[in-house]
Amino acid sequence: MTRARDLGIPFEGSTGVCNTITDVQGVTVGYATVIEGDSARTGVTIIHPRGQKNHEPVFASTFAFNGNGEMTGTAWVEEGGMLEGPIGITNTHSVGIVRDTIIEWQAKNDAIYQRWSCPVVTETADGWLNDMNGFHVKPEHVWDALTNAKDGRIEEGNVGGGTGMICYEFKGGTGTSSRKLPEKLGGWTVGALVQSNFGARYQLTIAGVPVGAHLKEHPVWTDGENPYKENGSLIIILATDAPLLPHQLKRVAKRATLGMARTGALGGNGSGDIFLAFSTAKTNMPRGDEKGITELHALDNDSLNPLFGASVFATEEAIINSMVAAKDMIGHNGFSVKALPHQELRDVLKKYNRLP
Amino acid sequence: MTRARDLGIPFEGSTGVCNTITDVQGVTVGYATVIEGDSARTGVTIIHPRGQKNHEPVFASTFAFNGNGEMTGTAWVEEGGMLEGPIGITNTHSVGIVRDTIIEWQAKNDAIYQRWSCPVVTETADGWLNDMNGFHVKPEHVWDALTNAKDGRIEEGNVGGGTGMICYEFKGGTGTSSRKLPEKLGGWTVGALVQSNFGARYQLTIAGVPVGAHLKEHPVWTDGENPYKENGSLIIILATDAPLLPHQLKRVAKRATLGMARTGALGGNGSGDIFLAFSTAKTNMPRGDEKGITELHALDNDSLNPLFGASVFATEEAIINSMVAAKDMIGHNGFSVKALPHQELRDVLKKYNRLP
Amino acid sequence: MTRARDLGIPFEGSTGVCNTITDVQGVTVGYATVIEGDSARTGVTIIHPRGQKNHEPVFASTFAFNGNGEMTGTAWVEEGGMLEGPIGITNTHSVGIVRDTIIEWQAKNDAIYQRWSCPVVTETADGWLNDMNGFHVKPEHVWDALTNAKDGRIEEGNVGGGTGMICYEFKGGTGTSSRKLPEKLGGWTVGALVQSNFGARYQLTIAGVPVGAHLKEHPVWTDGENPYKENGSLIIILATDAPLLPHQLKRVAKRATLGMARTGALGGNGSGDIFLAFSTAKTNMPRGDEKGITELHALDNDSLNPLFGASVFATEEAIINSMVAAKDMIGHNGFSVKALPHQELRDVLKKYNRLP
Amino acid sequence: MTRARDLGIPFEGSTGVCNTITDVQGVTVGYATVIEGDSARTGVTIIHPRGQKNHEPVFASTFAFNGNGEMTGTAWVEEGGMLEGPIGITNTHSVGIVRDTIIEWQAKNDAIYQRWSCPVVTETADGWLNDMNGFHVKPEHVWDALTNAKDGRIEEGNVGGGTGMICYEFKGGTGTSSRKLPEKLGGWTVGALVQSNFGARYQLTIAGVPVGAHLKEHPVWTDGENPYKENGSLIIILATDAPLLPHQLKRVAKRATLGMARTGALGGNGSGDIFLAFSTAKTNMPRGDEKGITELHALDNDSLNPLFGASVFATEEAIINSMVAAKDMIGHNGFSVKALPHQELRDVLKKYNRLP
Repeated sequence: MTRARDLGIPFEGSTGVCNTITDVQGVTVGYATVIEGDSARTGVTIIHPRGQKNHEPVFASTFAFNGNGEMTGTAWVEEGGMLEGPIGITNTHSVGIVRDTIIEWQAKNDAIYQRWSCPVVTETADGWLNDMNGFHVKPEHVWDALTNAKDGRIEEGNVGGGTGMICYEFKGGTGTSSRKLPEKLGGWTVGALVQSNFGARYQLTIAGVPVGAHLKEHPVWTDGENPYKENGSLIIILATDAPLLPHQLKRVAKRATLGMARTGALGGNGSGDIFLAFSTAKTNMPRGDEKGITELHALDNDSLNPLFGASVFATEEAIINSMVAAKDMIGHNGFSVKALPHQELRDVLKKYNRLP
Repeated sequence: MTRARDLGIPFEGSTGVCNTITDVQGVTVGYATVIEGDSARTGVTIIHPRGQKNHEPVFASTFAFNGNGEMTGTAWVEEGGMLEGPIGITNTHSVGIVRDTIIEWQAKNDAIYQRWSCPVVTETADGWLNDMNGFHVKPEHVWDALTNAKDGRIEEGNVGGGTGMICYEFKGGTGTSSRKLPEKLGGWTVGALVQSNFGARYQLTIAGVPVGAHLKEHPVWTDGENPYKENGSLIIILATDAPLLPHQLKRVAKRATLGMARTGALGGNGSGDIFLAFSTAKTNMPRGDEKGITELHALDNDSLNPLFGASVFATEEAIINSMVAAKDMIGHNGFSVKALPHQELRDVLKKYNRLP
Repeated sequence: MTRARDLGIPFEGSTGVCNTITDVQGVTVGYATVIEGDSARTGVTIIHPRGQKNHEPVFASTFAFNGNGEMTGTAWVEEGGMLEGPIGITNTHSVGIVRDTIIEWQAKNDAIYQRWSCPVVTETADGWLNDMNGFHVKPEHVWDALTNAKDGRIEEGNVGGGTGMICYEFKGGTGTSSRKLPEKLGGWTVGALVQSNFGARYQLTIAGVPVGAHLKEHPVWTDGENPYKENGSLIIILATDAPLLPHQLKRVAKRATLGMARTGALGGNGSGDIFLAFSTAKTNMPRGDEKGITELHALDNDSLNPLFGASVFATEEAIINSMVAAKDMIGHNGFSVKALPHQELRDVLKKYNRLP
Repeated sequence: MTRARDLGIPFEGSTGVCNTITDVQGVTVGYATVIEGDSARTGVTIIHPRGQKNHEPVFASTFAFNGNGEMTGTAWVEEGGMLEGPIGITNTHSVGIVRDTIIEWQAKNDAIYQRWSCPVVTETADGWLNDMNGFHVKPEHVWDALTNAKDGRIEEGNVGGGTGMICYEFKGGTGTSSRKLPEKLGGWTVGALVQSNFGARYQLTIAGVPVGAHLKEHPVWTDGENPYKENGSLIIILATDAPLLPHQLKRVAKRATLGMARTGALGGNGSGDIFLAFSTAKTNMPRGDEKGITELHALDNDSLNPLFGASVFATEEAIINSMVAAKDMIGHNGFSVKALPHQELRDVLKKYNRLP
């Protein structure tokens, strides 16, 4: 699997060990990739904030930059400040089956924190490469992704929920990246995982270079008439081990917007640009003493800037990673999408003096 | 079916013809009630904003007074201002199957407005009377509720999504009411439909009378120790034919809070008090001319007060209607809940001089 | 000064020692009342969250039920979760002078927490009894209220920012109340201070009794044609010593809505119903250790219900207190407003069996 | 006055006639620049949405990307969807005097739309070059800016509210730009006006080029230890003649974030990144017929993308314009800030092949 840094693309900041969301201690990621026959090009991605064995809630918050999409479970994340189980990412029309199956998995694992569960499941639309109305994601796929989740290196590109996605009119999908702050700035890790399915070609910007203006072959949406046509969405999940309160995690989630912007996006009407940030910091918030009192840690506001930067940089790189790792795909009704061509990309970056 | 007004309970304002949400021209409501064996006490309620044959979107907005619950589809309602299909209401753990089945129904009826659909499905938890982890709502129930929807008089109490609900520790469920404004105030109709599943007994207030302080028999949650225990949620859907813009409908949705408050609720931590308001006014918003321009109608802000009042009054009455119509129920694990006793209620109201 | 309980009006819950916002340890309140000549009927109210000598920020959050009004400083309260100085309440057209004068006071007292200050100043419109465009609030009034603030018993009615206000078409103004929870529910105190300037007469409800339907003399806005006419706003400040995080304080602030609703309000278009809640719990949030880490306390979500109830009950009583304490007033252009008549009120409550 | 395009910096999209916010028909801008003695380096900027003679409200909406700042009047803009008067922009500690003086001006011009006024006044902190606690903005400055407002070409850089600002550790201030869409995409104009006072040097990005990594001379905040130090804020006002509803204008306001991001910003904790968008389209929204009904125009959602792009591009260029036009300044306590050096900037852009 090729990653953006393998091509020499420059990014800001230092990555964690694997340059993945799983660099944040405890986080595991599982995939089920559903590629069947001519028309099924979809799947499920699962993120367990504390791994599949630890069901303790985490503080979390969400932000919708452009809400033309779905993220279930946000009402309670926003109200109570807590994410009480795994996150699912899939195609738009399979959100329900993923949601209910997560509840079934939680019930069987005694992992429902309140007496009811409202899982966070989010999506982007793969209805061009995938027969989205065929409802190809089945409960067994969800169980598979829930139970095969792992830490360490994880796959990118045409995998899990990202299988059939399209990004800047190239093949998109799943991407990830991380940043590790210097010890004197806290030493915290921030990890991003994205499902990229957005953007018009002409907007595509990599390392500040107007790549889309040069790589015009094989467009998907745009024509000469209206360069503003685009379809699809961008889901960004940010994880950190920094001890942040829910209102601080909202600020982190909002920074994902800046990472998206650095790749050229304009936030098109059709895009569900929906983001969630959570903190794995140990906290006994959920259960207090006999008076309900819990003890927590947090960062002061003046110490947040390095985390904001890390969130922006990890998001940007995760998006580019999703495109670099993705492969050409032919799907439903013979619809085909090309991957970002690595050599041509390098040529453009060189032209703008952005390769070492 | 007994309704609150049949008992002589006084409410403010004049109702529409049926005193139901279907008094708003075009709105239809369908139910599937799932009562099977010892443990299935649940169902589905469907609201078609323009009836099941007209798939034109309506302007809408939502408000979560306390977000310990689920309403899918809100990201796009808030962003785009539009509700693009039917609303489903069910139990917490069946939201997914209702959601995906609505999409299937939309796909088969050529009723997906954009290329993807993110239906609005909301819930309250019936996990005491119903075996919620048994996932008893099936696609055929959803299809049934979608296709049997009708206008005119509709059922209340233990019906549809409200089948297994508990309200102020009495049997709750589905309730509805409407208000019709005088012609000089616009002549608009506002209809409410609620799924009531909230509140501690001691809070229950009807027509301003502290009913819960008197009718203490058969409590469900509370004990002598902590009167603040409560479980469950309240979903309120408000419909109107008044031409309102999305930001005005948010104001209407927020007024549902006041109707809830008039029945004594304190908005407990565990309650998903989530509201949606939509306008069925004819508008060509969705599709503009060649420049995308559409022509709309709206009310000026100074004309909204009568609609605000109508929304509050219809909500209050719909909640009380849900309790008055509900019947005693025995369910999962033999758990049983008593209905609000009509004669005792009248006796208390009399004591406070609130019956004619 | 007569208070609602002096008239025998029943309320839920146990009050703190003084039944004032100052029952919350540390909170002080200052007033400047500006009654001059025929036309100046206004003033300033100041609330110091930790008293005028302790400038440590407090966690806070705000909620606008109906935002036809002003509360400055909310952007940072919402973003950073912190209230960094005193709160000012005045008339709509004097918000600016109060705001800048608070900054001047902060600068002179070395009390600017960041390098800049964005004080919270809020308002209701007294432009009927007061010549609001005469800008009668001067810097010396603000200084006076800032420096004369005290704890213990505080005045109500025609005082401070509430001097010229009108509530349910009776004389309104400043009101306060508190609740003290039993030790087994945490022993926390919640205090409310309101500036009441809202409502149409027919809506007025006290202890569940439709008082406004009986006390129809001396209306201010309504006429036979349109009972929905109303003007003005309601500001509610809630203080507590319970250790709550910003997102939990937002939930407390939202509960003020329910207290307002219990007095009959419908949230009219013209009303600025804007609320703020803060916690005086000791926390070192503002300044962390060398890595920015701070240690905090909070309550678990399941322990919040008693605080929610306390917030609702204190708000309701503070509103009624503001009306009971207020006196008849004649002001600008001879405009006159009558106070709520105590004996007639008692007679109506008796009729509905709500007096002991 | 030099502008970014004069230096050959490339931007996307076609500008309006003057490349200013005043390209939107009706919009006028006034400045008062207060430079006195050693310590006063501040001022006021006024934007009249329909010019100073037409007091009809406009539809508007706001968005705070990072709310460490002030924008008064947002409660009503968000609730009612309307901006009812001029916008003021000044330094943080002069917001109050600007606000109250706008009300005085409105009262004298019979321009208060409701019976009260809650003007929108916003700010960035100039407390390094300016003695912010000296309160140097006086009512006469506000009157001056209100009455001298004009259309056509307007000044940029060290002018009006932007006089004493610092951006990416170079001299910042006031900047403006516009975009005119092709007729087939609606022909609408979007204009931006910014007050730029944000960013750390190393972040500065122009036309995708990492300019800040090269132009390291004369830093203001950063040192070798912590590159994440930064201070200040960014105010962005977007105007358009496209007929947009309030919820659509919120989407436009959010796009300002992307324009900001394209200049390299990370949204630091201390930054008040607060945006407002308004539409000057003729609408009779404010006053309906005898039933309160008004007739409006809007764009369908699918036609918004070109406006989103125009908003992003105009914002980005306005920020760079503010820096290109600004001049070196020495102020309070001898604090000095250098302007962005034009030739060195061109040299860096050339190195990255971004100059023609």
